[in-house]
Amino acid sequence: MTATDSKSATASSATHVRLGPKAFRDRPGEPIVTVGIVGATGYAGGELLRLLLNHPNVKVVGLYGRNRDHVPVAESHPHLRESGLVIDQAIPEADVIFTALPHGVAAGMARDIVSTGAALLDIGPDFRLHDPADYPAWYKFDHPAPDLLAEAVYGLPELHRDEMRAAAAKDVTVIGLPGCYPTATILALAPLARAGLIADLAVDAKSGVSGAGREARADLLFSEVNESVKAYGLFTHRHTAEMEQELQRQGELGMGSKTVNPGVATVDFLPHLIPMTRGILSSCHVRTTRPIAQADLDALYADAYRDEPFVRVMAEPPATGHVLASNLCRVFARVDPRSDRVLAIGAIDNLVKGAAGQAVQALNVVFGLPETTGLEQYPVAP
Amino acid sequence: MTATDSKSATASSATHVRLGPKAFRDRPGEPIVTVGIVGATGYAGGELLRLLLNHPNVKVVGLYGRNRDHVPVAESHPHLRESGLVIDQAIPEADVIFTALPHGVAAGMARDIVSTGAALLDIGPDFRLHDPADYPAWYKFDHPAPDLLAEAVYGLPELHRDEMRAAAAKDVTVIGLPGCYPTATILALAPLARAGLIADLAVDAKSGVSGAGREARADLLFSEVNESVKAYGLFTHRHTAEMEQELQRQGELGMGSKTVNPGVATVDFLPHLIPMTRGILSSCHVRTTRPIAQADLDALYADAYRDEPFVRVMAEPPATGHVLASNLCRVFARVDPRSDRVLAIGAIDNLVKGAAGQAVQALNVVFGLPETTGLEQYPVAP
Amino acid sequence: MTATDSKSATASSATHVRLGPKAFRDRPGEPIVTVGIVGATGYAGGELLRLLLNHPNVKVVGLYGRNRDHVPVAESHPHLRESGLVIDQAIPEADVIFTALPHGVAAGMARDIVSTGAALLDIGPDFRLHDPADYPAWYKFDHPAPDLLAEAVYGLPELHRDEMRAAAAKDVTVIGLPGCYPTATILALAPLARAGLIADLAVDAKSGVSGAGREARADLLFSEVNESVKAYGLFTHRHTAEMEQELQRQGELGMGSKTVNPGVATVDFLPHLIPMTRGILSSCHVRTTRPIAQADLDALYADAYRDEPFVRVMAEPPATGHVLASNLCRVFARVDPRSDRVLAIGAIDNLVKGAAGQAVQALNVVFGLPETTGLEQYPVAP
Amino acid sequence: MTATDSKSATASSATHVRLGPKAFRDRPGEPIVTVGIVGATGYAGGELLRLLLNHPNVKVVGLYGRNRDHVPVAESHPHLRESGLVIDQAIPEADVIFTALPHGVAAGMARDIVSTGAALLDIGPDFRLHDPADYPAWYKFDHPAPDLLAEAVYGLPELHRDEMRAAAAKDVTVIGLPGCYPTATILALAPLARAGLIADLAVDAKSGVSGAGREARADLLFSEVNESVKAYGLFTHRHTAEMEQELQRQGELGMGSKTVNPGVATVDFLPHLIPMTRGILSSCHVRTTRPIAQADLDALYADAYRDEPFVRVMAEPPATGHVLASNLCRVFARVDPRSDRVLAIGAIDNLVKGAAGQAVQALNVVFGLPETTGLEQYPVAP
Repeated sequence: MTATDSKSATASSATHVRLGPKAFRDRPGEPIVTVGIVGATGYAGGELLRLLLNHPNVKVVGLYGRNRDHVPVAESHPHLRESGLVIDQAIPEADVIFTALPHGVAAGMARDIVSTGAALLDIGPDFRLHDPADYPAWYKFDHPAPDLLAEAVYGLPELHRDEMRAAAAKDVTVIGLPGCYPTATILALAPLARAGLIADLAVDAKSGVSGAGREARADLLFSEVNESVKAYGLFTHRHTAEMEQELQRQGELGMGSKTVNPGVATVDFLPHLIPMTRGILSSCHVRTTRPIAQADLDALYADAYRDEPFVRVMAEPPATGHVLASNLCRVFARVDPRSDRVLAIGAIDNLVKGAAGQAVQALNVVFGLPETTGLEQYPVAP
Repeated sequence: MTATDSKSATASSATHVRLGPKAFRDRPGEPIVTVGIVGATGYAGGELLRLLLNHPNVKVVGLYGRNRDHVPVAESHPHLRESGLVIDQAIPEADVIFTALPHGVAAGMARDIVSTGAALLDIGPDFRLHDPADYPAWYKFDHPAPDLLAEAVYGLPELHRDEMRAAAAKDVTVIGLPGCYPTATILALAPLARAGLIADLAVDAKSGVSGAGREARADLLFSEVNESVKAYGLFTHRHTAEMEQELQRQGELGMGSKTVNPGVATVDFLPHLIPMTRGILSSCHVRTTRPIAQADLDALYADAYRDEPFVRVMAEPPATGHVLASNLCRVFARVDPRSDRVLAIGAIDNLVKGAAGQAVQALNVVFGLPETTGLEQYPVAP
Repeated sequence: MTATDSKSATASSATHVRLGPKAFRDRPGEPIVTVGIVGATGYAGGELLRLLLNHPNVKVVGLYGRNRDHVPVAESHPHLRESGLVIDQAIPEADVIFTALPHGVAAGMARDIVSTGAALLDIGPDFRLHDPADYPAWYKFDHPAPDLLAEAVYGLPELHRDEMRAAAAKDVTVIGLPGCYPTATILALAPLARAGLIADLAVDAKSGVSGAGREARADLLFSEVNESVKAYGLFTHRHTAEMEQELQRQGELGMGSKTVNPGVATVDFLPHLIPMTRGILSSCHVRTTRPIAQADLDALYADAYRDEPFVRVMAEPPATGHVLASNLCRVFARVDPRSDRVLAIGAIDNLVKGAAGQAVQALNVVFGLPETTGLEQYPVAP
Repeated sequence: MTATDSKSATASSATHVRLGPKAFRDRPGEPIVTVGIVGATGYAGGELLRLLLNHPNVKVVGLYGRNRDHVPVAESHPHLRESGLVIDQAIPEADVIFTALPHGVAAGMARDIVSTGAALLDIGPDFRLHDPADYPAWYKFDHPAPDLLAEAVYGLPELHRDEMRAAAAKDVTVIGLPGCYPTATILALAPLARAGLIADLAVDAKSGVSGAGREARADLLFSEVNESVKAYGLFTHRHTAEMEQELQRQGELGMGSKTVNPGVATVDFLPHLIPMTRGILSSCHVRTTRPIAQADLDALYADAYRDEPFVRVMAEPPATGHVLASNLCRVFARVDPRSDRVLAIGAIDNLVKGAAGQAVQALNVVFGLPETTGLEQYPVAP
């Protein structure tokens, strides 16, 4: 672990140093992006730390936790004890600030963060939905910074890489990183949506428990979760809005017009909690607008993801166990030989491609680093 | 366990005694049904034994296992060591023979079994599908006893209780007990099917691993299954045929005619393997033929299951953890407020209501015992 | 479940009816023991309910929960929804009151309970340790009812059946039911202790998570417990005192004198939390006072448990998976061929033989019912 | 994954190139160690691949599997599909050959391997025990290459780093890599052994199931392992010999003489299988030869491991969940305040520090690379 020790000190970054993606490009001789994390004590924050501590071009300069004052990170993340990092209650000054916070909190802090020049990469939902009206509708709060929301880019590089790069060139860089369910689902469906093939859609997703966070809740106790499966969030899960927004947009891209795509206007999204820690499998039942042959479907997916470093088109249904601890998303699509249906499946590690890995990938895009930097590790199995 | 010891002896049932449901009714002074199990070493066989050893009106008189000669049941089922039962390679003589065998095997033995007068209750699939042509199509074998198949009743008491009773009065009593996925799915959907409400249907099911049986397969090792979820059997799972048959039939019943119901003609059935031992949750995504209000949906389900001892209509999505080791099926149906969709969910223990408990329930129906006899235990949780 | 409905009503037991074991024996025409549970919302309380609802000679007449007023039991125990029971905040009047409470609470309520004539069967620790000084030492509270403690019997029927029966004949009947770890450990070691064979003892135990209770604690979340094992409670676990008391006493019994047995004076007890819900395995590493042959060891255990309905001496190391949901304790002892050591192992379901099943067994002993009544079910596996 | 693609090609290493540690040192301009794996399809082989694919100074040039001919590695290791590697039935030519094989097999191939100059790093047991007589005694085979066994070094770098380096300078380099249980146990106990403190020892270990390998065995099925714990290998587990050998040797080192240490002459080793995939916790119950204060114990461990990159002395009992997927070993030792006992605990990931990571660490030592190269990643949690 000695190799990473040099990154673990909380730097006293002088306040008048310019920060952010634009400043970073002006200092080519020092290829280190300074990073702060606000909300470092949860599972996404811990996973982000794990990945960043392994990233050759990143230096973690500050961790923020409410009411914490120089608390060793080991109290929250015993597995990261050797990092020597501590958590403070000052918002770090850094080129990029990751926020991993309950909904509504990052939006309230955003203006302060971006005023330093830092890029704001929000792992929470506060900058994912483009229509401010969606926040009271789905999240029950009025967005406090609609101007910043208007600047924000939905940070799924596979679909919005160019927009993310454009955002990095602006004075204000805000990336709303996708949710875990939407990541698996949108990547599984984007080729179909773009081809205008979705006539009706039921998304049936299964998630490990880490996605529910780290709060001490009785319903998340081992004895409650183990040996049981249940559906939750029927018709009201907030990630539904994200899926509808992005699938609609892919449809527009495919058609070259802003026509509403009725097949994805109201997605039937049903998440389930299953007894495992990590992993999301999103099984998408699609009624197609027209028959499609398997070979054409294969071509559609191959074309969509040929150059993507983290998306793999599979010939067999993927298992979440084969992406764990990696940033991979494995997707699969198969025509039902008996009907005009397609099954599309996406598998990710909810804490990596569904949260922290995606955040690191976004950092790489925004700061002009090779997109796989720090994310090259293979999945851990068994 | 002393109370059950009296049932554990392998009785030397005299061969000229008349057997079967009709014979049983002629001996009112001796209210004990004698039972034999062919295929007692698997998980369904073990669970059947557990339940029968607790049944006040049953005596297990013989267990059959291929190439076994007086092998203690504890070798297959250490938890049943105290039963003192042994497994032999002679087919038992008994009022009822349960078969728990790979597909095609019970069909080959059926004639010998029913010729003794014994009722044949097949936990496997050999007598579930009414159309002989379905066997080569779905199971890849030609049914060797189409005449017996013609006599067989699909043994889901909640839908076919009267037919099962009628079968008990005949000289030949053959019950094809439902599969685990179909049980959860059909019970979740029958009220909708009967009301002609299903326009399109995707069944997304999640199963514990015990449903895959007990064969030493590398893909079922703990290290492979744990911390992973995957879909399997896409478009080809054999239980699909059962669901289509029964949902079609419920539609006919509702309409009073044999018209084909296109909404269930080709069911999109996708099973998943999840890291738990027992339990099936079947999440049914229904596009309805017409809008329906939640209150009307509630009434539909309440009417359907009001008098059923083992089906519970829930106000919240059920968890499989709350039916474990019991014969309960919890069902739930909810209207999507944004579209003409209904979500219907069924939860069972795959080894009980999905196999052995259903078999005991069928025994009770066929032999005229109170239907809950031996099945009164509450679920085990946590 | 209809068969048990008759037991589920909360009876309006007239307050001037005499209660308790003595009163029960005076009403032979009505062989129903009325039962109340104080602390019904935890895992032990739920398991006790499950077993009692299946007990032919018991009627549950009242459930107590702090600040609850007619709350359906289904809120705490969804799997027992069909019982129709409710939880109130009045202490029930019944022949027997089970208390399943944090330490110190039952002791404070005990006088009120026994004053009604009811037998007090405490699943918690307040009446397990005979020496009042052990409570401040191990549990950090001064026992508020040392006179009742003096009357209390340690309720492990296999070792104290006669004392329990004697207690039932007294005006005040208080049973301190054993802890989960001590049950598995003491039953595994009693024959060795009685024979004076224990020179030194390390007890290394592994428990499922349900033993830690149902409180919403971050360290008991699924994501924290899953895929991990750790030791806890080093040198300070409160169950140590119980083991030392009982093993010392068995030594006295064997020797016929009150001499201190140094081999069990300070037991090295190390519990571990492992990722499963139920089950305790206690692996006892014994340095013997003298060499013993395996055949003699076998005879020792066979003699000790020959007539015990719930203790099974095994020829192979037992797995907890083969006792789940049953009241069995499987024990095993083996001589190390290379040294003067013996390994003794005990396996139980912590919620049954380690808590609720033991409580029902104690009820049967105290009220003179056959000891296995309501506890005949075989283990559930897999 | 593109960054690693360059390593994935199976190189056509010319046969007349000199191989092995000595040859490697002669080519300073090309700091790449070529690696072959014999037995790449098991769990240890897969984990080794995962780590090597991430190692900056290693190139995997060949994988051997019996009867395999250009089979994609993805068939055995779907999570490594992106490596593009294939498995052949020719023994690779490389600077180092790792063998991960059933006992007895590597010993038979060893002469052929070392004759090429390649270092042989055996993950199996064939070169762990110094006394050839131990092989028939513990493993039931006569060692076919006692001369190579005499050259072999026990490859636990924390205890034998200098010997491993010395072996690298010889013409024949054979490293017998430690077993998983011995690694956790010996590192937990070495400071005590060296100080002559162990008077008696019981090692009670808990292992995840991956340690049992990948063979399709009925007793390793998910449904058998889940929700159960059991002991196995009583008094006969082969890792016992390794523990005794190494603890004895540490005692000799401490005393500066070859005197037999009776406290570790016959170790009471009891392994358990618990329901998790990875991780070993070894709980060592030590009766000490003399009293020791906690502060002195702390100093003993701090001194022993101060400079070790992979061993961490903990202030609290470690959980295996906090070392997963990393090469860390967390150790802990605590004095029992009531007796002359010490509890020492070691926690590792059995597939990393207990197998593949240790193998990479040994490669680094043998080839003179910084010892942490390729092993810097933090543990994965939750």
